[in-house]
Amino acid sequence: MTTISIIGSGNMATAIGNRAVQHGHTVELLSRNTATAKALADQLGNGTTVGTFGARPAGDIVIVAVLYAGAVDAVTQFGDALDGKTLVDITNPFNADASGVVTTPGNSISQQIAAAAPGSAHVIKAFNSIFGGVIAENKPVDLLFAGDNAEAKARFAEFVESLNMRALDAGGIGMAHALEWAGILLVGLAQNGAGFDVALGAKTTAI
Amino acid sequence: MTTISIIGSGNMATAIGNRAVQHGHTVELLSRNTATAKALADQLGNGTTVGTFGARPAGDIVIVAVLYAGAVDAVTQFGDALDGKTLVDITNPFNADASGVVTTPGNSISQQIAAAAPGSAHVIKAFNSIFGGVIAENKPVDLLFAGDNAEAKARFAEFVESLNMRALDAGGIGMAHALEWAGILLVGLAQNGAGFDVALGAKTTAI
Repeated sequence: MTTISIIGSGNMATAIGNRAVQHGHTVELLSRNTATAKALADQLGNGTTVGTFGARPAGDIVIVAVLYAGAVDAVTQFGDALDGKTLVDITNPFNADASGVVTTPGNSISQQIAAAAPGSAHVIKAFNSIFGGVIAENKPVDLLFAGDNAEAKARFAEFVESLNMRALDAGGIGMAHALEWAGILLVGLAQNGAGFDVALGAKTTAI
Repeated sequence: MTTISIIGSGNMATAIGNRAVQHGHTVELLSRNTATAKALADQLGNGTTVGTFGARPAGDIVIVAVLYAGAVDAVTQFGDALDGKTLVDITNPFNADASGVVTTPGNSISQQIAAAAPGSAHVIKAFNSIFGGVIAENKPVDLLFAGDNAEAKARFAEFVESLNMRALDAGGIGMAHALEWAGILLVGLAQNGAGFDVALGAKTTAI
């Protein structure tokens, strides 16, 4: 059991926070909107706390659960308070009609976050190829992730597995852009028959 | 049961051809390399024929199973012989180290093939988020696809389901680029622990 910090207080913060507390972790919420964060902390219960936006997070793993357009700014606001932290970028930088992403190869939001974060922080892309509703359902499911630092990835994978998810390593942070496209693919599948109760996964016997 | 034409005689032609004949379909092989095509036809058996490269394929569904760099040229060589056919683009246009794709949004190999094919042909992207070995294993598995023409997609999905695969529609042909990135993601997962006995899929209970 560990303490997880979540920057944000929206739908994905709610889904991930819920799943974390259900598996015995303690959650700290860090949001510009303190009222929303306090309401979510009450909802999550189990010792969930509300920290100060921009102050050093309590958890070693910090989920950056804000919309893509604000992710780099949020990380910049925390600055050196994120020294040594593992930052989890969950963003989907979709264009207006979700037909593609606004990022380019080598310049995923994860890589933009890494450039804005302290050099001692490690960035992992994850939680963007799964719908919030599926996270909240608490069923076993695949969770695809990517990042450069082996130690940070191992700790993150351990956390993910503790949530009854199978952590599937896609490779280095360069793979974050492939995951951003995977977010587009997931929405395409959802809108064309698969429904929104799905996550991308990898296996041979998927029926 | 139907007749499927496959342009090519390599690993993917072998895998898809094998799976097709195992489920009662008849396969026609169309390859520049007639000797290889004849050897593969002998291997596949079950009435597999070898057609003439560039001549009108026997099947309504034509799998373009050549490497990406040669796909547009192959389709161009067939020209009007592909009138009204459903062309299935299975290519993965990877860069040299499989860290990304050489195509750009809106200009996937599928879209390049569509531009080179007769206007009456329909292009579907499929079979590129699954390893050939998994196709050959004949286990139930997800098969992601994309394309613009509803009727062609319905017939293709019926063929896919007859192979004991679940056909998952990702949307229009613009989604082919997302599928090309999905090929990169699949290789990343394979190389980082998942192994090569996998295919991308979409479900909530993936463990």
